[in-house]
Amino acid sequence: MSLTEEQVLERIARVRAARPRLREERITLAHGAGGKATHTLIEAVFLDAFRNPELERLEDGATLATPAGRLAFTTDSFVVSPLFFPGGDIGDLAVNGTVNDLAMCGARPLSLSAGFILEEGFPVADLRRIATSMAAAARAAGVDIVTGDTKVVQRGKADGCYVTTAGVGLLERPLTLSAARAVPGDVVLVSGPIGDHGITVMLARGELDISADLESDTAPLHGLAAALLDAAGPGVRLLRDATRGGVATICNEVATASGVAVVLEEKAIPVRPVVNGAAELLGIDPLYVACEGRFVTVVSPEVADVALAALRGHPLGAGAARIGVVGDDPPGLVLLRTGFSGTRIVDLLVGDPLPRIC
Amino acid sequence: MSLTEEQVLERIARVRAARPRLREERITLAHGAGGKATHTLIEAVFLDAFRNPELERLEDGATLATPAGRLAFTTDSFVVSPLFFPGGDIGDLAVNGTVNDLAMCGARPLSLSAGFILEEGFPVADLRRIATSMAAAARAAGVDIVTGDTKVVQRGKADGCYVTTAGVGLLERPLTLSAARAVPGDVVLVSGPIGDHGITVMLARGELDISADLESDTAPLHGLAAALLDAAGPGVRLLRDATRGGVATICNEVATASGVAVVLEEKAIPVRPVVNGAAELLGIDPLYVACEGRFVTVVSPEVADVALAALRGHPLGAGAARIGVVGDDPPGLVLLRTGFSGTRIVDLLVGDPLPRIC
Repeated sequence: MSLTEEQVLERIARVRAARPRLREERITLAHGAGGKATHTLIEAVFLDAFRNPELERLEDGATLATPAGRLAFTTDSFVVSPLFFPGGDIGDLAVNGTVNDLAMCGARPLSLSAGFILEEGFPVADLRRIATSMAAAARAAGVDIVTGDTKVVQRGKADGCYVTTAGVGLLERPLTLSAARAVPGDVVLVSGPIGDHGITVMLARGELDISADLESDTAPLHGLAAALLDAAGPGVRLLRDATRGGVATICNEVATASGVAVVLEEKAIPVRPVVNGAAELLGIDPLYVACEGRFVTVVSPEVADVALAALRGHPLGAGAARIGVVGDDPPGLVLLRTGFSGTRIVDLLVGDPLPRIC
Repeated sequence: MSLTEEQVLERIARVRAARPRLREERITLAHGAGGKATHTLIEAVFLDAFRNPELERLEDGATLATPAGRLAFTTDSFVVSPLFFPGGDIGDLAVNGTVNDLAMCGARPLSLSAGFILEEGFPVADLRRIATSMAAAARAAGVDIVTGDTKVVQRGKADGCYVTTAGVGLLERPLTLSAARAVPGDVVLVSGPIGDHGITVMLARGELDISADLESDTAPLHGLAAALLDAAGPGVRLLRDATRGGVATICNEVATASGVAVVLEEKAIPVRPVVNGAAELLGIDPLYVACEGRFVTVVSPEVADVALAALRGHPLGAGAARIGVVGDDPPGLVLLRTGFSGTRIVDLLVGDPLPRIC
């Protein structure tokens, strides 16, 4: 069973009809956490003001139907702290993040832009290190950084360096991937162990007195996405990289947009022991912790095995796993089946346990 | 006389061969002012790291030759302070700024992205006002804001709200506009009185104890650019909106990229008396003050009259003027002919007399 484009648009219209209200008078860190407050802010302020069909999809990027062809277009701002951490820095994070948003639209990334907001006094050597890392990440992803902008603000009006990348990609496949495409019976896959990036950044801040042999998973995912789409084609309903808010947030977005239940099997979700341990010390569930090189995909049952095999056959998908299924009841909710045949609801994140993770 | 594409590329290669060195160890406000320090930073750090032919053109946006057609792609970050000022705010500034960068490439603007960096504690009502203003500006320019991102940083790590827009446009004309295309004999035009935006923002900060009946000139320039290109076609060498660094900076960029002299007539340059007066009090030359709704164009002598008439026939170009000519000596320099047949050199801006003007 697959939905027509019309049915997907109906689903989106139904969800958008329920306009949430923003009760807070001031922005809090939670508004940037990717969870409940972020969703409310986006829907109550930005969707309300900018209202257009493409934005209302709330996917990782927009599809532009130009007279010249179908393009994907996306942007992300990066405010990660610290700027440098094991396995990466704000530079490769910004490049990979935008490459991945394009890949999640099913696009081949073409070109990136980069906007820098620098704080007066920021070391030029650090900026050079960030630029070098961006260049290497762009090269690895096969894209060029073709245009940019630099602004400087006074001391105390930023935190060293913020980077905003935008990207354009080419939609060469006749697919529209969407969180509103899931149907009961579908299978949920994740492309590898979750939470490495978020925990790495938290540990790099020295807020926990532990050191662990852990690196950010930041990586460009367009090659892995292409391998999956080549193998499983139109059986792939959606791709979402599990950044802010983690796997839990993506599953909630799917449940809401598709009006389905997402049922996850706790023991099937790949989490490294060190991530599990650190998350426990921090008092957070790894399901909410950001990755920067993992995606969740929902596929039709017929292609589930071939999809999983395609992921596992790619170096960035070696740890891929089948983590759940799509059901019809209760619609809009994510359930986690835990060890002793217990079940709990996995809601959107409230508050921000991990600020400035990306 | 017009240059071939090959000759333009040779000019760009020659200028890029002279790699400047960045002597400072830390970022200063001057690195964001659009003048000498900004140019050095971009060439020594970003061009050096990202090196690719499209970026090396250093135009307002990049041209993407996709299998699907020619696109323009651009980005700008906005950190203006205060966020609200007579005639506009950071929201319409961010939309118009990116629309204008696309227009300066000769493109028809299609879609924008918006990335927000918000400071914890920022009033939601202000954010709503900014979003509403962005939506109105987008509507006026005939574009949609189709994708976005929101990050929140802790109190004291930003200044309320920063906005980074990126834009995609369609290059429907077989033109490549470039600062490297000017040749001796060409005519320099400006589309209206200069410096309104910069002086308005300075006055809004209350740093001068004067009040003036002045508004920002922020406006979308794609309609005016199209009117010019329709009338003067391939006789138009380049378009540049006179933002940070003002008309003086653009003329310097043209002189350097084309290896020509630009000779401006001081008395021909349209400046409102109130802008002249305020600039004098601030100790700055209006030639360096940012506009957000004016552009400079260099056109071949044969089309100069028709080009000027086309500008003046459009509401946003009513105050257009012929302000100078392109000569061959001294190459790379901008000269200003002043009242009593005197001449002075107009160099790139050193330092930053007007921080956070956009």
